[in-house]
Amino acid sequence: MLRWMTAGESHGPELVVTIDGLPAGIELTTEAVAAELARRRLGYGRGARMKFEADVVNFIGGLRHGRTLGSPVAIRVGNSEWPKWETVMAPDPVDPAALEGVARNAPLTRPRPGHADLAGMQKYDYEDARPILERASARETAARVAGGTAAKAFLKQAFGIDIVSHVKALGPVRAKDGLVPTPADFAAVDADPLRCMDPEASARMVAEVDAAKKDADTLGGVVEVLAYHVPPGLGSHVQWDRKLDARLATALMSIQSVKAVEIGDGLMQAAVRGSAAHDEIVPGPDGVQRLTDRAGGLEGGITTGQPLRVSAMLKPISSLTRPLRTIDTETGEPAEAINQRSDVCAVPAGGVVAEHMVAYVLAEAALEKFGGDSVAESRRNYEHYLEHLRVK
Amino acid sequence: MLRWMTAGESHGPELVVTIDGLPAGIELTTEAVAAELARRRLGYGRGARMKFEADVVNFIGGLRHGRTLGSPVAIRVGNSEWPKWETVMAPDPVDPAALEGVARNAPLTRPRPGHADLAGMQKYDYEDARPILERASARETAARVAGGTAAKAFLKQAFGIDIVSHVKALGPVRAKDGLVPTPADFAAVDADPLRCMDPEASARMVAEVDAAKKDADTLGGVVEVLAYHVPPGLGSHVQWDRKLDARLATALMSIQSVKAVEIGDGLMQAAVRGSAAHDEIVPGPDGVQRLTDRAGGLEGGITTGQPLRVSAMLKPISSLTRPLRTIDTETGEPAEAINQRSDVCAVPAGGVVAEHMVAYVLAEAALEKFGGDSVAESRRNYEHYLEHLRVK
Amino acid sequence: MLRWMTAGESHGPELVVTIDGLPAGIELTTEAVAAELARRRLGYGRGARMKFEADVVNFIGGLRHGRTLGSPVAIRVGNSEWPKWETVMAPDPVDPAALEGVARNAPLTRPRPGHADLAGMQKYDYEDARPILERASARETAARVAGGTAAKAFLKQAFGIDIVSHVKALGPVRAKDGLVPTPADFAAVDADPLRCMDPEASARMVAEVDAAKKDADTLGGVVEVLAYHVPPGLGSHVQWDRKLDARLATALMSIQSVKAVEIGDGLMQAAVRGSAAHDEIVPGPDGVQRLTDRAGGLEGGITTGQPLRVSAMLKPISSLTRPLRTIDTETGEPAEAINQRSDVCAVPAGGVVAEHMVAYVLAEAALEKFGGDSVAESRRNYEHYLEHLRVK
Amino acid sequence: MLRWMTAGESHGPELVVTIDGLPAGIELTTEAVAAELARRRLGYGRGARMKFEADVVNFIGGLRHGRTLGSPVAIRVGNSEWPKWETVMAPDPVDPAALEGVARNAPLTRPRPGHADLAGMQKYDYEDARPILERASARETAARVAGGTAAKAFLKQAFGIDIVSHVKALGPVRAKDGLVPTPADFAAVDADPLRCMDPEASARMVAEVDAAKKDADTLGGVVEVLAYHVPPGLGSHVQWDRKLDARLATALMSIQSVKAVEIGDGLMQAAVRGSAAHDEIVPGPDGVQRLTDRAGGLEGGITTGQPLRVSAMLKPISSLTRPLRTIDTETGEPAEAINQRSDVCAVPAGGVVAEHMVAYVLAEAALEKFGGDSVAESRRNYEHYLEHLRVK
Repeated sequence: MLRWMTAGESHGPELVVTIDGLPAGIELTTEAVAAELARRRLGYGRGARMKFEADVVNFIGGLRHGRTLGSPVAIRVGNSEWPKWETVMAPDPVDPAALEGVARNAPLTRPRPGHADLAGMQKYDYEDARPILERASARETAARVAGGTAAKAFLKQAFGIDIVSHVKALGPVRAKDGLVPTPADFAAVDADPLRCMDPEASARMVAEVDAAKKDADTLGGVVEVLAYHVPPGLGSHVQWDRKLDARLATALMSIQSVKAVEIGDGLMQAAVRGSAAHDEIVPGPDGVQRLTDRAGGLEGGITTGQPLRVSAMLKPISSLTRPLRTIDTETGEPAEAINQRSDVCAVPAGGVVAEHMVAYVLAEAALEKFGGDSVAESRRNYEHYLEHLRVK
Repeated sequence: MLRWMTAGESHGPELVVTIDGLPAGIELTTEAVAAELARRRLGYGRGARMKFEADVVNFIGGLRHGRTLGSPVAIRVGNSEWPKWETVMAPDPVDPAALEGVARNAPLTRPRPGHADLAGMQKYDYEDARPILERASARETAARVAGGTAAKAFLKQAFGIDIVSHVKALGPVRAKDGLVPTPADFAAVDADPLRCMDPEASARMVAEVDAAKKDADTLGGVVEVLAYHVPPGLGSHVQWDRKLDARLATALMSIQSVKAVEIGDGLMQAAVRGSAAHDEIVPGPDGVQRLTDRAGGLEGGITTGQPLRVSAMLKPISSLTRPLRTIDTETGEPAEAINQRSDVCAVPAGGVVAEHMVAYVLAEAALEKFGGDSVAESRRNYEHYLEHLRVK
Repeated sequence: MLRWMTAGESHGPELVVTIDGLPAGIELTTEAVAAELARRRLGYGRGARMKFEADVVNFIGGLRHGRTLGSPVAIRVGNSEWPKWETVMAPDPVDPAALEGVARNAPLTRPRPGHADLAGMQKYDYEDARPILERASARETAARVAGGTAAKAFLKQAFGIDIVSHVKALGPVRAKDGLVPTPADFAAVDADPLRCMDPEASARMVAEVDAAKKDADTLGGVVEVLAYHVPPGLGSHVQWDRKLDARLATALMSIQSVKAVEIGDGLMQAAVRGSAAHDEIVPGPDGVQRLTDRAGGLEGGITTGQPLRVSAMLKPISSLTRPLRTIDTETGEPAEAINQRSDVCAVPAGGVVAEHMVAYVLAEAALEKFGGDSVAESRRNYEHYLEHLRVK
Repeated sequence: MLRWMTAGESHGPELVVTIDGLPAGIELTTEAVAAELARRRLGYGRGARMKFEADVVNFIGGLRHGRTLGSPVAIRVGNSEWPKWETVMAPDPVDPAALEGVARNAPLTRPRPGHADLAGMQKYDYEDARPILERASARETAARVAGGTAAKAFLKQAFGIDIVSHVKALGPVRAKDGLVPTPADFAAVDADPLRCMDPEASARMVAEVDAAKKDADTLGGVVEVLAYHVPPGLGSHVQWDRKLDARLATALMSIQSVKAVEIGDGLMQAAVRGSAAHDEIVPGPDGVQRLTDRAGGLEGGITTGQPLRVSAMLKPISSLTRPLRTIDTETGEPAEAINQRSDVCAVPAGGVVAEHMVAYVLAEAALEKFGGDSVAESRRNYEHYLEHLRVK
């Protein structure tokens, strides 16, 4: 059983992620976590915050001398801007005088369409959107990525699984079909300003970002995550919530801005006939082989041994420099929505976050199947499973 | 906390669903369950099984005199074909002589592409696909629907929530945009052969089914579920797996054949700019009003009070009369896939199943927010919440 | 992940248990389940119901030809008395005329001290205790035992684990200290009228039951469960709710009437010094050896490889023939409590139920450590673990 | 749904607790948390560590200006001794030269009987007990208490629930029967060196501690927790793992050293007849009244409205100054167990920890029944429930 939670406000002192259930012996360093966090800041179209966000990472627990201990892994990601916020976001009571006239402390009463602001205020009974947006912000994904680095390291070290992602579409611009990164493309994808495999599309995406920025607007897009060297047999068809596709759907849909999730070529599959939708099976030199990969490596909620492939569709960022119409909750009058940040687009980073979400799901499914309290034990059980496969 | 599981094999004696956590006092009858099960058999393009499937429903526990007791609700759905299968699918050991030469008992060694067959055989270490397909079959959704009827009844009786669904696309045929059923359209949708709101598209869908049938092929499509009168504030942005959109994604993706899930107009949102993607907020006569409903009634993983709207994309059925290529797992040689059933398309029924999956998720989220061990208590807490909303 | 639920009312048509997560390939028969259910009816001091309870068992799902399939195992336990109750406990609405004057249908308004009656009526908003007592009754443990038989079979077949139980005390009569059954004593314990290892104490227990019966009174007692051949390393110290002792505590305390739980000699340990409380470790011929077994085979929430040993203390049955004082909830006046059944003591059966609860917990912990989707895979991983133990 | 986890090693930089699911609006300060942590250091017989442990507390997330936000509450408890350990316990790899000859870094190969050392080494595949004992240590309870303060605050502010604890026995010395603290005794109990209500017994306990200390030995004991003003109806009889007594059993048994758990007078109840075991019900001036409180405020796994009362039995500390016999896992030879700390007895602190564990369980059960995303909403639902109780 793998379980994990994050905590922390966007402008609070720090974020923390706690992961319970990882085996002992996974090699992991703050450097590795910091590297993934840096990847999360990638992408053309990010605003100023990404620059000063240079996340300070510390391990709170679960590691010693570069290896996990089997105990819960907890990682903090500091907020380098905290000094600016320590009164306004102080966890403890503060002298009201200290808050008087502080602009940052003024209640935010003009909820942004597309954000959790209004629904959150209603749910939690607030007259101020700050308590909501502080947690709803995508800043929270920094903690997910920090912890996901541990899940990725486990998958790689125990099973040789590699996870990569890329941007398939940015707003109306789509990359050429069929361009899918392999582990060998990892660095090249990250080097592209949009994390896109198609240089020509990438150039148009840059132009699209520039145009949207000029118009004080924002953009969404589509990211795809691939996991290579996933063995057959993760997940299960036997109960609705054990299907791996269902669990990946939660993981991806939970990312801020994601509004749709696709397994393999699911959208295409819904529009064609069965004879053109499935992946026919043939004998191959090394065992069973599929002629196509439309299913994204998942059949009946179980991995097939083909690369796992899932996509997430992100809506445009809800905070626009040219604000949307809203109401002022204090007065009930029409108003312009608050503007909390100025990225034009966070899609390339969304792919990085999605990789980590996939890593959590795969790590959990692998532990269910293979067990193991140390990397060596999980790996051993996995190797024996492959050896004993009746159909290879 | 609401939790539920189904059990039972497709050709076993019966299916059962158990739901723990429903309050006392929900009005429910076997007739109501049977009516929903009959809706699950709707739709042009279904095969012979749907006819003799006339499900026999019994309550095992959790009800007395037409009301839930607060104890677990368990419902059995009998298999009217059981007598034909009682040796081949006998849970207890049978005399090998009784199985000798029985065609139905022969190991199924030609796994169907697109189905759980092969991955399941690898995972569970079988040389026969039967143990896998018996549980992977969409027959299992009969149990989901039976239990979902209880969740629906709770939502209606405690909060006035209505859930409807319709078919948006069948293979390449799409219904006109913007045709969305309301509770008033419930019967009309069910009366359409494809459960489609657009009569013209429905006619073309019928033709598409006929054509596919002639070609011994199958079809997928897109269904949309709407929930009306959902209060704002269900779900939460505060933790990845508490977001209601993420939980709906699991629920829908867990349905057999579903390969993509969309919240509201998520696919469209990913392709347009922020200024055209979100639902602007204005003062209305009865409180806050949205000018559009692109978000599907969910922002930040929380319901907004607008109708909840989610879609599921189903791939075509994997069992084709004109079988796909596969291997024979016994010999390793190329083969034609087994053919287990002959529906051309189950998309209209997929919408009915999806309604019930949405009902489970909403019932759970409503219980988290409002608590309550009786319908009266849940309703009372809900009414007081609405009264006390700061922003209405 | 192993999870399971029961459903069904005491006088309803049947009980059902559903267990999700058991591997494929466990040998199991209705006969084996029926045998465990018969053991649950053992013991001197049971009332009439135990006689006609001769439980009818059917597998609903999860098995074929005597082996589990990896899918959820669901078992029904029929209620042979159902015909007497089918109107009074009808799940569906019944014609009020059919209920008129039916004594069994009269609201039960005199809640029994010690039972869930009153608190349940308050929680679930009932004026009648029947909806509560139908589910609170220890009859529910028949479903637990039915499912526990599957867990036991898995533990035995994959790991060679044997589970036994005995009665340590009945009311004031205690068996001699240090008499602990091994698997070899299984039949002998069941043959004793009180399931007690100490024949002399057993005779006094019989007398105690007779005396209590004469006085229209009831008795509780203490049962102990032992699991043999449990490998070291099940459970974990790393998180509060993963400690195996904590999980066993829930499992045992959840049994009707249990009011205390002890791991090993926990009560004694609390009263002595550290030098007399722990199990010293010495080198033995086959590896590590402990000089005593006070810890009950659990240190830090992890199994040590010694026999697991836990006890449950049961209060006397709450339904007394000579009823306790209560109030009539309809009138608020003093009254005599309802009398629903007439066992003097169910302690010997309590031991059988406790065995099964221990089996669920161990099966879950073993699956967490060893994984496996088939018995062969779980066993293989377990054997490799034992081989690779650094300290044996 | 309330869920929470702790992380961090005993000699690591800090501990952290994360609690997800607490409503918004709970008043909480670091001062309040620090005060509870100071209570956790109380008690005669503690060693040197308790003195320099003066825990530094910081809120990581979930609070603003002294109130919870509805987002996860995360609290860190710093380790003031960290500078002494930062190389030996460094999470990141360190230069082997820096560890050479460092005594604290030497592998611990003489596992302590009674501790997780040996079983943990076997489970997690270690040749050194340090990775195990760092997490198994009762130091971890500091994080539990920090988080439990939030749960306690919620219970008090929403429902007026007060939780107190006391020491009933220390080794062989038992306090007089029937001395049970009320909320009014809170300060007085803490002022007693053993947190005992019986001054005469307390004096003998002091002597017992002194004697054990002189003999280089350790002591266990019994603590009891009471919760006042708990409404009837928390927990449920309907499913085994929803019974509140079962959940309290996990919570208490999960505390380091606890080996038995008792609800009310469970041990006594097992030894007497039914007529002397249950709490008879009579009409009282303010509604239903019980003549006794043997059940500890729990019947059928549901709170009755009487004070909740549960006990935990703690074995003596496993680290003895006069070490127990063990083996050296490196050589397999007989050895003396490592000695990691020198408290004689931690029973008084055990009571404080137990209070917090009870608080988590009650907070979760109250949220299940009453729901609520703000303290005001939870309280409102609770008040309406009390108003509508049929039987009061």
